[in-house]
Amino acid sequence: MANEKLTKKELELLEKAKEGMNNAFAFMTKFPTGSTVLTDRRNIYHAGNVETTISGMGSCSERAAIYHAVAHGEYCFKAILITTQNEEPVKPCGMCLQQIGEFAQVANHDIEIIMVGSKGKVSRSSVYKMLPDAWGPRAFGADLSKYEKK
Amino acid sequence: MANEKLTKKELELLEKAKEGMNNAFAFMTKFPTGSTVLTDRRNIYHAGNVETTISGMGSCSERAAIYHAVAHGEYCFKAILITTQNEEPVKPCGMCLQQIGEFAQVANHDIEIIMVGSKGKVSRSSVYKMLPDAWGPRAFGADLSKYEKK
Amino acid sequence: MANEKLTKKELELLEKAKEGMNNAFAFMTKFPTGSTVLTDRRNIYHAGNVETTISGMGSCSERAAIYHAVAHGEYCFKAILITTQNEEPVKPCGMCLQQIGEFAQVANHDIEIIMVGSKGKVSRSSVYKMLPDAWGPRAFGADLSKYEKK
Amino acid sequence: MANEKLTKKELELLEKAKEGMNNAFAFMTKFPTGSTVLTDRRNIYHAGNVETTISGMGSCSERAAIYHAVAHGEYCFKAILITTQNEEPVKPCGMCLQQIGEFAQVANHDIEIIMVGSKGKVSRSSVYKMLPDAWGPRAFGADLSKYEKK
Repeated sequence: MANEKLTKKELELLEKAKEGMNNAFAFMTKFPTGSTVLTDRRNIYHAGNVETTISGMGSCSERAAIYHAVAHGEYCFKAILITTQNEEPVKPCGMCLQQIGEFAQVANHDIEIIMVGSKGKVSRSSVYKMLPDAWGPRAFGADLSKYEKK
Repeated sequence: MANEKLTKKELELLEKAKEGMNNAFAFMTKFPTGSTVLTDRRNIYHAGNVETTISGMGSCSERAAIYHAVAHGEYCFKAILITTQNEEPVKPCGMCLQQIGEFAQVANHDIEIIMVGSKGKVSRSSVYKMLPDAWGPRAFGADLSKYEKK
Repeated sequence: MANEKLTKKELELLEKAKEGMNNAFAFMTKFPTGSTVLTDRRNIYHAGNVETTISGMGSCSERAAIYHAVAHGEYCFKAILITTQNEEPVKPCGMCLQQIGEFAQVANHDIEIIMVGSKGKVSRSSVYKMLPDAWGPRAFGADLSKYEKK
Repeated sequence: MANEKLTKKELELLEKAKEGMNNAFAFMTKFPTGSTVLTDRRNIYHAGNVETTISGMGSCSERAAIYHAVAHGEYCFKAILITTQNEEPVKPCGMCLQQIGEFAQVANHDIEIIMVGSKGKVSRSSVYKMLPDAWGPRAFGADLSKYEKK
C-alpha cells in the first residue's frame, strides 16, 4: 500500500517534495526530482532540481532544499526526503550525500535519508550509512558554533 | 545618503537580501553575501551563500536565490539584488551571471542587476550588459514553454 | 579562407583543441567542445568537455584545460582557444570566464580568448573585456606568490 | 614501513599524484591533494586540486585527473590513487565518488580506490564499495559505446 511506512510529518515532507518536483527546472533531462529537509526545529524546506546547459552548474533538489533552509537560518537537519517519477526510490547522488554529510557535521548527528518512489514505495537510510566519515568542515577545524543548534 | 536610489520595492529586496546574508553559511571565507530575486509576478525570493569544503560544491547567494524561486514555480525574473559587507557594491561572479543569463532566456527579457554596498551605495547593471549573448537553453533548441510566463 | 587569422602557434593550439573536442565526453548534449591554454612559458594544455548526469558536476573544456595546465605546475596563461562544431565561434560561458578571470589575477595580466568556428572563422576577445574586474583571489588578499611567474 | 603495500605500477601512480599535489592550486585551504588515474590501457593521468573563490567552482584532484584522462581519449579506469599531506589516508569526497562512479558505468567494471597517507600508509577500497549503485549515464539509457574499451 502506498506510503504506508511514512509518519504524518513525513507525509508532509513528501507533499512538499512533490511540489518541488512539479516546479523543477529539468529541461535537459526531463527528469524532475523533489526534496524536502526537516530541520531539528521541525521546520521544512523544499526544492526541485535546477538544470543548466553548463557542465558544473545547477543543482539537484537535495542541495537546493538545503540552500532553501540555510536562507532561513537553519543548518541542523534531522532528515531529508527525496522523490522522483521513478517507481523505485532513487538515492541521492554522491555530490548531494557530500553536501548532506557536511551539514551532519554542523548538526553533530546523523541525518536520515528517506527515498520515496512514484507509487509510494519507501526506502530508508542515513548519510552516516551512505557516506561514512564524510569529509567536511571539522577536517579544517572550522568554528561552526554560530550554526549549531542553540 | 544611504539607499537613496532604491525604490520601495527594491528596499524590500534589500531587506530580504540582508536576511540572506545574515543567514549565510560562509564558514570558509567569512564573507557572507545575500541576494533576492524579484519575479515578473512581483514575488521575491532570497538566499545567502552556502560554502563547503569541496572545490566545485556550494552556491553563491545569487544562484541559491534563483533555486529558491524555482522551488516555488517561478522562472521569470525582473531583477536580482546582491549585497555584501563591502562598502563598495560587489558584482555577481561569472558563474552567477551565467545562471542569471540562462533564466533571461526563459523570461525572454533582460534581468536587472542591483548591487548594494554595506552603507547603501547602489550600482545598477543588467545581465545583457554584464554577460552579453550568454549561452543557454535556446542554443539547444530547448522547449521552455512550460516555464515561460503565462 | 579558413584559419587565415591564426598564427602558427595558434594553429597548434587549434589542433590540440580539436583533439580535446574529439575526445570530449559529451554523452548528454552531444555538443563536444575543445580548448587549449597557452601558458606564459609557451607550453600548451588541452581538454574536452566532460559531462555527467548530475547538475553541478562535470566541466566545460575551458576549465578542464586549465586544470590540465595546473597539473603540470603552470598558472600563468597568455591565451585560451576554444572550438566547437558550430560554424560560428562560441564564447566561453560565464562560469569559464570566471575561472579564466581568477587566473588572470595570478598572471597579473589579461588573457586573450580566441574562439574558432568549425570552418575556421575566428573571433578574438579577452577576459578583461568579457568579464571586467572579475572577482578572484586578490579580493581575499590571497598570497599568490607561489603561483606567479618566476 | 612506507609504501610496502604498493605494487611497482602503484608506486608510479603515487609519484605522479605527488607531482599533482605539489602543483595544486590550493590557495584557499592550503590543503593540496594529488590524484592519478590508471586506465584500462595502463596509461596514467594525474592532477592536483584547483581552488577558486567561488562556491561551486574548482575541482578536487580526483575529478581533475579524470578530466586529464578524458582529454587524451581515455574513459575506462582501473584505479585511482589519492594522496595528501595528512598522515592518515584521505578518502575521495562524495562528489568525486559520484564522478568516479559514472565512469565505472562506462568501464562496465569496478574502479579501485587507493588512498595513501603522507608517510606511506595505504588504504584500499573501490567505488562499488564506497558509493554502491551510483546514479549515472546508464540511468538515462545513454549510448556509451563510443567510450567503452575497444
